[in-house]
Amino acid sequence: MSDFYKDLESQKKGSQSSLDTALDSLKFNSDGLIPAIAQQHDSGEVLMMAWMNRAAIEETLQTKQVCYWSRSRNNYWRKGESSGNQQRLKSMSTDCDGDTLLLKVEQLGAACHTGRRDCFYNEISDQGLEISSDPIQDPNQLYKKQ
Amino acid sequence: MSDFYKDLESQKKGSQSSLDTALDSLKFNSDGLIPAIAQQHDSGEVLMMAWMNRAAIEETLQTKQVCYWSRSRNNYWRKGESSGNQQRLKSMSTDCDGDTLLLKVEQLGAACHTGRRDCFYNEISDQGLEISSDPIQDPNQLYKKQ
Repeated sequence: MSDFYKDLESQKKGSQSSLDTALDSLKFNSDGLIPAIAQQHDSGEVLMMAWMNRAAIEETLQTKQVCYWSRSRNNYWRKGESSGNQQRLKSMSTDCDGDTLLLKVEQLGAACHTGRRDCFYNEISDQGLEISSDPIQDPNQLYKKQ
Repeated sequence: MSDFYKDLESQKKGSQSSLDTALDSLKFNSDGLIPAIAQQHDSGEVLMMAWMNRAAIEETLQTKQVCYWSRSRNNYWRKGESSGNQQRLKSMSTDCDGDTLLLKVEQLGAACHTGRRDCFYNEISDQGLEISSDPIQDPNQLYKKQ
């Protein structure tokens, strides 16, 4: 296993490496996937977390439209393909050990399939769970087949 | 498998459930872990992503000091125990399908073991990788053994 990301820890701001080495050195799990957090670039809202494989990362960098890997459908998941609620990539980064991605995006409409702006609406405290937001779009309209 | 989180999708803001049911219904992976994103509660910075088991979640809710499960050390990881850079929990939520947690926290000092404020300092674009920040604390001082 390469120690590429370990070696970067002591590098200064502005230090550069090749894209191929950076992607080759990411720590994908045993299914070839890496978790990707999507954050609205200007407001800072954390919208959702999903998974990418290497090809999805490359496509996203090229097209600037976020493409995940759907574990339930076992296929590429081009965000917004059915709903129209695309995520345009503003920037991508990986963490210190190269096993998580952070995508800063421009989210059109609702990020969540429930029609809510983001997926993290189930607030949990020592008192229990409470739903913290309502949909901003009708989910039945979002995925209406023509 | 419970459809608890599926059933919550159509519930309105303010709807409540018991803590036990909420935690029992989380979708832990085959190692009993769930990914947890830590976000600075006021600035919105995404600080890091780590993993929790059920006991770590319960401890975090009780003590309000974030406790993860370290996959490399195979043990509880009480954030800031050695460095002093604790994370105080402000709120916790789970996403629509109950397989990811978002922790809003008050982060003391650097969240990253490299001494950087957050872990996502390896910016990746179609041009390659570039380090986007420098440490705010000296990592050699952070983990200095007395």
